[in-house]
Amino acid sequence: MPTIDAERLLGDLRRLAEFGRYRSGVHRPTYSAEDVAARQWLAERMAEAGLEPTIDGIGNVIGRRPGAGPRLLIGSHSESQNHAGWLDGALGVIYGLEVARAIQAESGPGAVDVVSFADEEGHYGAFTGSRSFCGLLEEAEIDALANRYDGTPLRSALERAGYAGRPREQIEPERYRGFLEAHIEQGDYLESSGLRLGIVTSIVAIWQYRIVFEGAQNHAGTTRMAIRKDAGLALVRLAAALDKRFPEVAGERTVWTTGRITLEPGAPSIIPGQAEMLFQFRDVDPDRLSLLERALEELVAEADAAGPCRCRLEALSRSVPKLMDRRFQDALEQAAERHAPGQHMRMPSAAGHDAQILAQRVPAGMLFVPSIGGISHHWSENTKDEDIVLGCQVMASAAAAILQA
Amino acid sequence: MPTIDAERLLGDLRRLAEFGRYRSGVHRPTYSAEDVAARQWLAERMAEAGLEPTIDGIGNVIGRRPGAGPRLLIGSHSESQNHAGWLDGALGVIYGLEVARAIQAESGPGAVDVVSFADEEGHYGAFTGSRSFCGLLEEAEIDALANRYDGTPLRSALERAGYAGRPREQIEPERYRGFLEAHIEQGDYLESSGLRLGIVTSIVAIWQYRIVFEGAQNHAGTTRMAIRKDAGLALVRLAAALDKRFPEVAGERTVWTTGRITLEPGAPSIIPGQAEMLFQFRDVDPDRLSLLERALEELVAEADAAGPCRCRLEALSRSVPKLMDRRFQDALEQAAERHAPGQHMRMPSAAGHDAQILAQRVPAGMLFVPSIGGISHHWSENTKDEDIVLGCQVMASAAAAILQA
Repeated sequence: MPTIDAERLLGDLRRLAEFGRYRSGVHRPTYSAEDVAARQWLAERMAEAGLEPTIDGIGNVIGRRPGAGPRLLIGSHSESQNHAGWLDGALGVIYGLEVARAIQAESGPGAVDVVSFADEEGHYGAFTGSRSFCGLLEEAEIDALANRYDGTPLRSALERAGYAGRPREQIEPERYRGFLEAHIEQGDYLESSGLRLGIVTSIVAIWQYRIVFEGAQNHAGTTRMAIRKDAGLALVRLAAALDKRFPEVAGERTVWTTGRITLEPGAPSIIPGQAEMLFQFRDVDPDRLSLLERALEELVAEADAAGPCRCRLEALSRSVPKLMDRRFQDALEQAAERHAPGQHMRMPSAAGHDAQILAQRVPAGMLFVPSIGGISHHWSENTKDEDIVLGCQVMASAAAAILQA
Repeated sequence: MPTIDAERLLGDLRRLAEFGRYRSGVHRPTYSAEDVAARQWLAERMAEAGLEPTIDGIGNVIGRRPGAGPRLLIGSHSESQNHAGWLDGALGVIYGLEVARAIQAESGPGAVDVVSFADEEGHYGAFTGSRSFCGLLEEAEIDALANRYDGTPLRSALERAGYAGRPREQIEPERYRGFLEAHIEQGDYLESSGLRLGIVTSIVAIWQYRIVFEGAQNHAGTTRMAIRKDAGLALVRLAAALDKRFPEVAGERTVWTTGRITLEPGAPSIIPGQAEMLFQFRDVDPDRLSLLERALEELVAEADAAGPCRCRLEALSRSVPKLMDRRFQDALEQAAERHAPGQHMRMPSAAGHDAQILAQRVPAGMLFVPSIGGISHHWSENTKDEDIVLGCQVMASAAAAILQA
């Protein structure tokens, strides 16, 4: 059985966190100087581990073990959200590196290739690197994408990073038994259950909507309450109705969020003539998702019928829940039980991950370690050292079992 | 009794509407080329009417009748809201001009001075011209003010308009019996009551607030509903509570408005950690205003106590209702009854007007004519010609009565 080197693992994780350090976290946006330097450092670590590294035309770093035999691909992403945590993505990449080294040292059957995808966090697109690797990103989309914060075209960013003109590496599905990704949970299910490992069963679907209200802009002093068509008030009433209704329709792990509200023109003395909200919900159960959508549609129809404002629902996206491979789940669970008996659970992922893209081409599995306080997308994000080490050992054992099978 | 010239009145109103014409309305922002040209044209009309015109250092146009005897000041403002109506402000200015001419022609006792204030609509400040005229605008405030749409400093705008360096005219309260202002109603009380004239009893107070919600920004997928601190949801719940509670506390003519809502960071997949709403209410009754504020304070305190978000109320401004002079109300009512028996009512003004500033220095009175459909601050704003003519005749008769008293 492969044995990981805890000190080497934590050392590499801490070294990676120096690229773009921000308080106790990192600020390492996609294709920033810090991200580019970190990818170069990763390629060097891969080469040291006897892998053949490539940084491709979209910034993916892939380290392949030369020779024949069964292969597993292990990794995640190494850029970060803005001013965010040191483990989101980085953990899964360094796990890949350490498991590749441990498996190689043990000279069992097969080997591990390691990958760090670019732009999972979506500074430019969404899952840009893993979609490129899986043949799901066309040149025309690369032409069109731009940085969501400063508007830099993706092409210019790739040029500046030195990646432009390189070929984009493509997955060879026949090379791999599948893909494994480790990640911090980013929620508090594990912590609040007193457990140390989560075996991901599926990655939630996210259904996103824009709800638009049309009223009549008017003077906030002279327009009587009785004759107003206040689009903002119509929005508040619908949002309050959703707040009442959704808990009745939701499953145990359903989440729903209004992330943005806009009133037009947004002036203190003008009755809003238009209003808009962005609403989303997430679940792993397709039937539940349909139920939730029906409830939303009913409330919007009721709001529209009640008047005096028009209310319209617009679906922005409906993703499909991505099931993780059952044999990979079993392998991860057996390894978890071996190293931490009774301290693991099967659970869905409520966030999106590169594994949901890879799952479209090869079997995929995911392992979670606890997030302290459930905090993520914040510089204070953290996980106990012993949980980081345990997770990596479990992943190494599971990878060895999959390669031996 | 002075008799106005309907054709001359409507002709001047239509000529003024050519400065910055926009569809059937006007776009004549404060100190725009169109506004400056319109003020020059007004000064020439005043001179033609035998008044001595001055355009002062803030852009106020004042036409004074030479000689001794009792004086009334009549007018309003001549700039417009952006892409708005042709009568808001302009009506009161041209009424002043026409009444000055009619009174002069009749050679009764006393005379009328005419004024067009600058920036009542607040492109730079609020009631900038009338506050200047009443000694309520300091040089330091002029230094600080800037265009709310494009940021141009007020000083630069005055320079470009050619007004910089001129003295700012100040009201001589002892010169005047008082100030009269006519205005379109901007609401639909008159129209829906089948009446043609409104005698303003008082100008509403506006109490404005910012309500701030502090939660915890987090991942919209991985954060369970039970542990969220969603500042946006806290805002929606308070806004819904206000929607329930305010009708119970409000008077017959109270109005309340949420003009702006902001969620931070405003991203679809992030639980808002901060939220803010701008809320205001208007009434003419100080006791009612206090009741409304108490209700607001209670709801905010309940929201804060309910958790999990903090909720804080911040008062931005509390104006005082401005009473119109009782003898002026009587004079206007008697004139209204004479020219349109039974077709008038006393009513408060739900919008702010220059008269509320002038009322701080001299007795003030206001007359409303109906707005078709209650529409204002929109290019389609209009009033029937016969109502425009009637209103001016009533104002002339009331002015004559006040000057004779």
